[in-house]
Amino acid sequence: MRFLLIGDIIGRTGRNALKHFLPSVIEEYKIDFIVANAENSAGGFGITEKVYNQLIQLNIDVLTSGNHIFDKKDAFKLLEEKENLLRPANYPPEVVGKGYNIFEKNGKKIAVINLMGRVFMGIPLDCPFRKFDEIYEEIKDKVDYIIVDFHGEATSEKNAFGYYVDGKADIVFGTHSHVATADEKMLPNGTIYITDIGMTGAYHSVIGMKIKEPIEKFLTGINQKYEVSKDGFLFQALFVDLEKKEFKRIKKEQY
Amino acid sequence: MRFLLIGDIIGRTGRNALKHFLPSVIEEYKIDFIVANAENSAGGFGITEKVYNQLIQLNIDVLTSGNHIFDKKDAFKLLEEKENLLRPANYPPEVVGKGYNIFEKNGKKIAVINLMGRVFMGIPLDCPFRKFDEIYEEIKDKVDYIIVDFHGEATSEKNAFGYYVDGKADIVFGTHSHVATADEKMLPNGTIYITDIGMTGAYHSVIGMKIKEPIEKFLTGINQKYEVSKDGFLFQALFVDLEKKEFKRIKKEQY
Amino acid sequence: MRFLLIGDIIGRTGRNALKHFLPSVIEEYKIDFIVANAENSAGGFGITEKVYNQLIQLNIDVLTSGNHIFDKKDAFKLLEEKENLLRPANYPPEVVGKGYNIFEKNGKKIAVINLMGRVFMGIPLDCPFRKFDEIYEEIKDKVDYIIVDFHGEATSEKNAFGYYVDGKADIVFGTHSHVATADEKMLPNGTIYITDIGMTGAYHSVIGMKIKEPIEKFLTGINQKYEVSKDGFLFQALFVDLEKKEFKRIKKEQY
Amino acid sequence: MRFLLIGDIIGRTGRNALKHFLPSVIEEYKIDFIVANAENSAGGFGITEKVYNQLIQLNIDVLTSGNHIFDKKDAFKLLEEKENLLRPANYPPEVVGKGYNIFEKNGKKIAVINLMGRVFMGIPLDCPFRKFDEIYEEIKDKVDYIIVDFHGEATSEKNAFGYYVDGKADIVFGTHSHVATADEKMLPNGTIYITDIGMTGAYHSVIGMKIKEPIEKFLTGINQKYEVSKDGFLFQALFVDLEKKEFKRIKKEQY
Ligand SMILES: [Fe+2]
Ligand SMILES: [Fe+2]
Ligand SMILES: [Fe+2]
Ligand SMILES: [Fe+2]
Ligand SMILES: [Fe+2]
Ligand SMILES: [Fe+2]
Ligand SMILES: [Fe+2]
Ligand SMILES: [Fe+2]
Repeated sequence: MRFLLIGDIIGRTGRNALKHFLPSVIEEYKIDFIVANAENSAGGFGITEKVYNQLIQLNIDVLTSGNHIFDKKDAFKLLEEKENLLRPANYPPEVVGKGYNIFEKNGKKIAVINLMGRVFMGIPLDCPFRKFDEIYEEIKDKVDYIIVDFHGEATSEKNAFGYYVDGKADIVFGTHSHVATADEKMLPNGTIYITDIGMTGAYHSVIGMKIKEPIEKFLTGINQKYEVSKDGFLFQALFVDLEKKEFKRIKKEQY
Repeated sequence: MRFLLIGDIIGRTGRNALKHFLPSVIEEYKIDFIVANAENSAGGFGITEKVYNQLIQLNIDVLTSGNHIFDKKDAFKLLEEKENLLRPANYPPEVVGKGYNIFEKNGKKIAVINLMGRVFMGIPLDCPFRKFDEIYEEIKDKVDYIIVDFHGEATSEKNAFGYYVDGKADIVFGTHSHVATADEKMLPNGTIYITDIGMTGAYHSVIGMKIKEPIEKFLTGINQKYEVSKDGFLFQALFVDLEKKEFKRIKKEQY
Repeated sequence: MRFLLIGDIIGRTGRNALKHFLPSVIEEYKIDFIVANAENSAGGFGITEKVYNQLIQLNIDVLTSGNHIFDKKDAFKLLEEKENLLRPANYPPEVVGKGYNIFEKNGKKIAVINLMGRVFMGIPLDCPFRKFDEIYEEIKDKVDYIIVDFHGEATSEKNAFGYYVDGKADIVFGTHSHVATADEKMLPNGTIYITDIGMTGAYHSVIGMKIKEPIEKFLTGINQKYEVSKDGFLFQALFVDLEKKEFKRIKKEQY
Repeated sequence: MRFLLIGDIIGRTGRNALKHFLPSVIEEYKIDFIVANAENSAGGFGITEKVYNQLIQLNIDVLTSGNHIFDKKDAFKLLEEKENLLRPANYPPEVVGKGYNIFEKNGKKIAVINLMGRVFMGIPLDCPFRKFDEIYEEIKDKVDYIIVDFHGEATSEKNAFGYYVDGKADIVFGTHSHVATADEKMLPNGTIYITDIGMTGAYHSVIGMKIKEPIEKFLTGINQKYEVSKDGFLFQALFVDLEKKEFKRIKKEQY
């Protein structure tokens, strides 16, 4: 089974970068199953129904998310209706939507779990470590593969989570920082881990957005209206073959 | 002129990884000038005189630092005495030590500037963007090259800084996250940029430290005594040839 | 000279509480000069021209502010045009508006300085301690009285600031927490100090806002649309007579 | 039943202030039951066995705590052994100690619950709102009175909690800020609420500590060794008579 994991897709530029690069990557790597983080897919903040449909038509199997999932109100309806759109599982229980689900593909059962870190995230969530344990007990005998999108800021928390679930999850891929890390590796008990896959969006940008406004924000302390950068394409992903225990970080650029 | 930029060196394991890999890297890449971040070089927190001397003997030209520089009290004396040990320049003016300095090597004048980000860093510093401008006005006509270690957490702030100084600094390398990013690139006006070089330390670790205690901290909320991991070697650096405008991320592992 | 210092005025309810209580307080205490914080005066976030005019008609002499001052776009124009609307002085120098000004009343010259703390405020500002020093050098020989609105979250930072300027400022009154503190006192060198004056707004509320949405935010982690509570009136202020060195916290309620 | 609620006791000065003022307050108000927060009672950080014994001998019935409870290692043993020393109940379940307990006095059963806020506290805790609900279901039919020490920074979170448990808890008293708030009130459904009782410690101090070091910390960004101030006494408490639904903030000073 050959997986492709894609990080935060940033607005229209990110969707266009997907259209541009994804088909050939799927073919080249003979991808069976794709997970992508959609928290920034609509205008850089949140998701809409239209954008959801576009992403699904690009052959993405499961959409994960993070702190920006509720930025646009379509999310509430989508999270209720769509089986393959997830929000972090450690949002409190009453919050709309699912934090994990089990998918079938090529005769295999694949659990995708979405979790969010708590350090520097500013959102009062339940413990992602214990939430993993809880879900793991629930699903471990029912699935062939377990894949986790750990959406978080602090590298220490993401590292710690990777080792904590080493041997239980098959793949842990980090998202949220929008910058790919170069630390893809196999942990001692077999989990394939990367701290952050990085975004798919504009090549020249401040984490996907036009450069001027973030600089102005840092210079003045005054909130600015951010817009998605259109300056070049950057496509990033992690390829994993879970039978052969092979993995490779993929980066495609055009600028 | 051929530069090697090294991120946070984590304790004895990091120093041993340097001893193990650095000589051959210097030879292979014909390195002229080395900058390394020493904020975690002594036991994972701060620097001591003994460790300073060890690092200098490994042919490092300049040591930069960050939020952990004052963790061990030797730092106060070292920052006063040593011309090639820097602390972030945007600490307030009265704070002991230098935030930048000019070095001569092979007939060239090289300014190394150390700055620290403010997002999620918990330290009340002056504006790193304006501090760069101020130093730049001071030095721009006196030096051949300008190299910046931007020590920070938030990828947005580091991205924004890179574009802000694009065409003024020759190299901007990020430190502090202890995880290398895979986004080394040339910005539109010629600055060579990477969000984070990543640490040099133990291969299996939570950002350089033994795994058990950070996991315990995340599970309980109770502070733990962290120790430097000894589990394998990871050496990371950025090579830059500023004449040829060539650059390459280097990663050496042994585990 | 008899001063009245008023904290964050929260929306229409806060303005109505002012209309209701302020005239009789002015009369009872024979107030000469009023400073009030207007950062939440329009709908709970920011200020508009209409609201500015209302507040001035209520005989407030100077309006200070804080982190919410730029929430509504009228602020940019008002800060440029109005001599008696301040934003924190430790915003970077290029930011529109004044951080202090000198006012004349009853033949006396009164400097009002607005500063903002940096702990937990999430805005990258210049050092408020040094900014005070800088302004103090500028004005100390030109004015009869110096009054500081220190807008901040952390009690430690506000305490430290009070003692730092003790004997230089005549009055330091804290704002931002929206809850009055009971620690009004004279510091050893004569400065009248209070950590926070507290808001003027709705009696039953979560720091001025309707109760339901903040609870929902804390329970779910999802941002809510906050509205100004209308449940009762709370008027809070500090009265100071700087000749007699007398002061008294005032609290008027109706619910 | 007449209660006295005391906030953070800061080091030896705080204990001496208790010795000085508490006996006469007990007598004057005919106090039946005393709860005090001991998180800073030993040297300003944490608690020791010796200090625990001192506080109990002063007739305090229950000691609550907060983020500093684990600062000294005695806490681990004390939390295991002592029925009347609490740590916040929303620490994860495995953490040593109790978050609430039921006490008998004068034939009445009194539940004391200790909870901690999550905003700006930097500790990954479970939801204090839901933890209250869980404990409340457990105890509501077994006790006569429910008293909550909500240890937190953000006034919004403390306000929201108060209204959330209004009518379920009899008293909610906030701690942690070390500065008393002047907002003691009865909420619509009968809960007696105060955002923060404030510390018992030195009158002139930065939240209980000597003034010089905190100022130095804010000026330089470099950690300092804090010491408990000895400059005067400040004793603060909330008196509540739950039968008569009367309450009064008490403040005693000597400087
Ligand atoms: Fe994102
Ligand atoms: Fe995110
Ligand atoms: Fe570091
Ligand atoms: Fe650092
Ligand atoms: Fe406010
Ligand atoms: Fe504010
Ligand atoms: Fe405390
Ligand atoms: Fe505390």
